[in-house]
Amino acid sequence: MVHTYSLVHDDLPAMDNDDLRRGRPTCHKAFDEATAILAGDALLTLAFEVLAKEIDEPAIAVKLIGELAGAAGPGGMIAGQFADLKAEKGQGGEEMLEYIHANKTARIFRCAAAMGAICGDANENEYKSLCEYGFKLGLGFQIADDILDVSASSEQLGKTAGKDAKAAKCTYPSVVGLEKSRQLAKKLADEAVMILEPFGPKADTLRKLAIALLERTR
Amino acid sequence: MVHTYSLVHDDLPAMDNDDLRRGRPTCHKAFDEATAILAGDALLTLAFEVLAKEIDEPAIAVKLIGELAGAAGPGGMIAGQFADLKAEKGQGGEEMLEYIHANKTARIFRCAAAMGAICGDANENEYKSLCEYGFKLGLGFQIADDILDVSASSEQLGKTAGKDAKAAKCTYPSVVGLEKSRQLAKKLADEAVMILEPFGPKADTLRKLAIALLERTR
Repeated sequence: MVHTYSLVHDDLPAMDNDDLRRGRPTCHKAFDEATAILAGDALLTLAFEVLAKEIDEPAIAVKLIGELAGAAGPGGMIAGQFADLKAEKGQGGEEMLEYIHANKTARIFRCAAAMGAICGDANENEYKSLCEYGFKLGLGFQIADDILDVSASSEQLGKTAGKDAKAAKCTYPSVVGLEKSRQLAKKLADEAVMILEPFGPKADTLRKLAIALLERTR
Repeated sequence: MVHTYSLVHDDLPAMDNDDLRRGRPTCHKAFDEATAILAGDALLTLAFEVLAKEIDEPAIAVKLIGELAGAAGPGGMIAGQFADLKAEKGQGGEEMLEYIHANKTARIFRCAAAMGAICGDANENEYKSLCEYGFKLGLGFQIADDILDVSASSEQLGKTAGKDAKAAKCTYPSVVGLEKSRQLAKKLADEAVMILEPFGPKADTLRKLAIALLERTR
């Protein structure tokens, strides 16, 4: 829900101004801007409501809510989104890029892994490893996303391709080039897989996820 | 924070499109639309983060988060806001008005009272009474707000006056008239005060609040 909320708001005219998402009209196109603002607000709030009401153990629920709010809020995704918007207006460089990717994307991937670890009653080391796995997966995902924006068609992506370059966005391909971006995504996926080693075969799904991320074409 | 978030989003051009709030430029006027969208998202998320991280007792924290998310989310404030927007486009009547006011405003006032009751370790009857008090206070507040929109100046209000009529909004003054609206607001404040009777002098602040609501001029 938090992921969908952020996409609905991200597509708004004042933000990325996108007409297409997953091959279908974006929320403000299918309905209107006010509806898209409210739909995003509703999904964000609902995420916390579900966690507060559907989990039997309050101590677990509170931990999950703390993780999610920390990752999605002003110390995480919002900070990344804000920097992303400002970076479009001129600033940039590799340091800014890392800050944006870490906060805009990797924090929320890390959060998903952390929430799984908490639900699975992970010990402190397992929790830390899964967080690191999620963070690297998120960084890799964002680089792969930026690569696809310059290398794939709108039809393939189900959203408007080439928008980053047009908006002079601060992305890996624009800052370090396409080839180095591909290497970096591969390196991150390899590292993510490495981190999973102590978990043995029970982490196979997470391994497959890290590899699939590199091979995705949309 | 939830209150401020909803005002920041409510003022956006796609929503109420207001330039002035508490006598100062609205967030999207002082900064820009993207910043206002993100600032609202940040405040909403931060509210849940604070509740999850700053309250020692997880069982209490989870209850508070459940109350807040339920009141602010798609089953509460968002439903009211959405109906409010749609009602501007023609529908209306007293039934719709009650639905809008109950969800857009009274639910979140009820929630503030409920959260206080939970923090104060209220028993079930006290909790119910305080919820009812908050709900009536919220309904009265919204009627008083609608009255001020037609009877006060922008300078007095610190926001643009007369906007409801201009937008053909579904309000008490427009549906039942100014005089009946005033009577209704008074009736709600009286009822709110009545509900507090069992609490004795320790509810004096809440009594004063209900009365101040009727006397407010901005």
